[in-house]
Amino acid sequence: MATIKDVANEAEVSVATVSRVLNNVGYVNEETRKRVEKAISKLNYKPNAVARSLFKKQSKTIALIVPDIKNPFFPEIARAIEDVMSREEYTLILCNSDEKVEKEKKYLEVMKQKYVDGVIIVTSTLTPKYIEENGTPIVALDRPIGNDIPSISVNNYEGARQAVQYLKSIGCNKIAHIRGPENIINADERFNGYMAEVGQEPWFNEDYIVTGNFNVVETTEVTKKLLDKHPDIDGIFAGNDYMAVGVIKAAVELGLRVPADLSVIGFDGIQLCQLTSPEITTIAQPIYEMGHKAAELLLELIEGRPVDKMHQEFAVKLIERQSTRIME
Amino acid sequence: MATIKDVANEAEVSVATVSRVLNNVGYVNEETRKRVEKAISKLNYKPNAVARSLFKKQSKTIALIVPDIKNPFFPEIARAIEDVMSREEYTLILCNSDEKVEKEKKYLEVMKQKYVDGVIIVTSTLTPKYIEENGTPIVALDRPIGNDIPSISVNNYEGARQAVQYLKSIGCNKIAHIRGPENIINADERFNGYMAEVGQEPWFNEDYIVTGNFNVVETTEVTKKLLDKHPDIDGIFAGNDYMAVGVIKAAVELGLRVPADLSVIGFDGIQLCQLTSPEITTIAQPIYEMGHKAAELLLELIEGRPVDKMHQEFAVKLIERQSTRIME
Repeated sequence: MATIKDVANEAEVSVATVSRVLNNVGYVNEETRKRVEKAISKLNYKPNAVARSLFKKQSKTIALIVPDIKNPFFPEIARAIEDVMSREEYTLILCNSDEKVEKEKKYLEVMKQKYVDGVIIVTSTLTPKYIEENGTPIVALDRPIGNDIPSISVNNYEGARQAVQYLKSIGCNKIAHIRGPENIINADERFNGYMAEVGQEPWFNEDYIVTGNFNVVETTEVTKKLLDKHPDIDGIFAGNDYMAVGVIKAAVELGLRVPADLSVIGFDGIQLCQLTSPEITTIAQPIYEMGHKAAELLLELIEGRPVDKMHQEFAVKLIERQSTRIME
Repeated sequence: MATIKDVANEAEVSVATVSRVLNNVGYVNEETRKRVEKAISKLNYKPNAVARSLFKKQSKTIALIVPDIKNPFFPEIARAIEDVMSREEYTLILCNSDEKVEKEKKYLEVMKQKYVDGVIIVTSTLTPKYIEENGTPIVALDRPIGNDIPSISVNNYEGARQAVQYLKSIGCNKIAHIRGPENIINADERFNGYMAEVGQEPWFNEDYIVTGNFNVVETTEVTKKLLDKHPDIDGIFAGNDYMAVGVIKAAVELGLRVPADLSVIGFDGIQLCQLTSPEITTIAQPIYEMGHKAAELLLELIEGRPVDKMHQEFAVKLIERQSTRIME
């Protein structure tokens, strides 16, 4: 493999000049720069990445911290981010935090140690103060952290209202909600959206709200109990698609038909919605675009380019599939 | 933040001695080592990871190269690997190759540049020669590459035979196979296992084999055509769980009941099998354990510890769920 010395010999310049060209610092006249670039190309010289990162204090690496890559929302996000990053010759480090603040902090500490250039994080626990003190460029994904931390998200509140309005529009009269964990902002916002639409309804009953914790097994259990106790429920808004799967499983176990007896709508728009029978109606986030944009936003921060919008809220979209139908 | 000089001052030794302790090279007497360690701990000194990796030519980072993290087999693998790695204070880089040899080679080149300590790869295209020349420690996962590259896999051939034997044992008389892509070793082996069980059967028909390419949409289409043309098929062995989902969707669209009219068995044991209705009977690989073991095997290679077994083949296990039943 060619060394920087070989390049210097080939270009008939000093090693320092090659270094100035490589790192784009200091003055190099145009003719010399071209000669060096030609030598680099001819010798297929690959500057040592670790040495360069030491010099430039950057590693062309970013990290993605998610609660758990096994949750099917996150592989879709990870793929989008990695597509952008590998195109820009960055590598992507994957971290699973299990929603635990100690793990998140440990990862951020390690990333700083390794001169990781930036972090995209899905967190409900870290404070803006902590992130600022860490100093690493950070983009908050899915769950905004504070005014000063750039974020990519959707309007969960409006999306949830849209879900419930849709169930009403197809004739559902008793609409229940399976909510995600408390204190996770998107779960709370979706719950608030549901409440805004049903809180004043004469049929509204607090028992129609149960917690599925973004977990399929838990959701199946609580939904079976819910439908057992309230057989007149004819529509369910699940706080995410993953829980909508649990609702359908509960219905099947109780001998109820979806959508003939019960309409079900989810939230997120993950691929899983198209793998079940019936396929699941959902409020879809543009997941790939969001990952893509988070990656681009992080690169703007890292490279010191102007950030044109600190907080980007993407539009959600109702996708009608087989789990809902006009009630008679 | 404390520097190595601060540690040296605190411990009343030279910087070189601190370095010897940190990197565990050269002689340091026990009393001195303890004084240095105490100083490191007291000052909360964090050695600069990039500088250390330059010195030691290692980065405490490994990479995982998979075809596509969106395929639900791989997030389960990635999680297992990251669990081991983060415990050992390694970080995990995620790469998506789309089964393309140029992408795989590019990633391996970049990983070498960045002194990534080792790579776990799921590939059908790279040759042992290429990998040896690259020089990075590599473990092949899911698909063995050659005798000299350590690997973690299952016996796909025997697992496939077990799947077909099971369908026979519950009374299926016309068993079809949806196979994965040609030239992907595990797809080929599963196909061979199917053939070993059905090739001599009087009812065997080559039309009973169709290609689903490990893709749900494609599988749904080809299965609909298959069942349309051969309505007497009463059992289907899908080459992976993902395609088994496609088979169930095809059956639903044709108005067939699974398992009343058609028994379906998959292969892999991914979580998705438990999210569908009916839940899918499968030949399960111990996915988490395999990821775990791949990570441990790679660490043995990286750290120069003796590798106790170059090729580890895990046992598969039949898990009976709702998509199969005894035929009348």
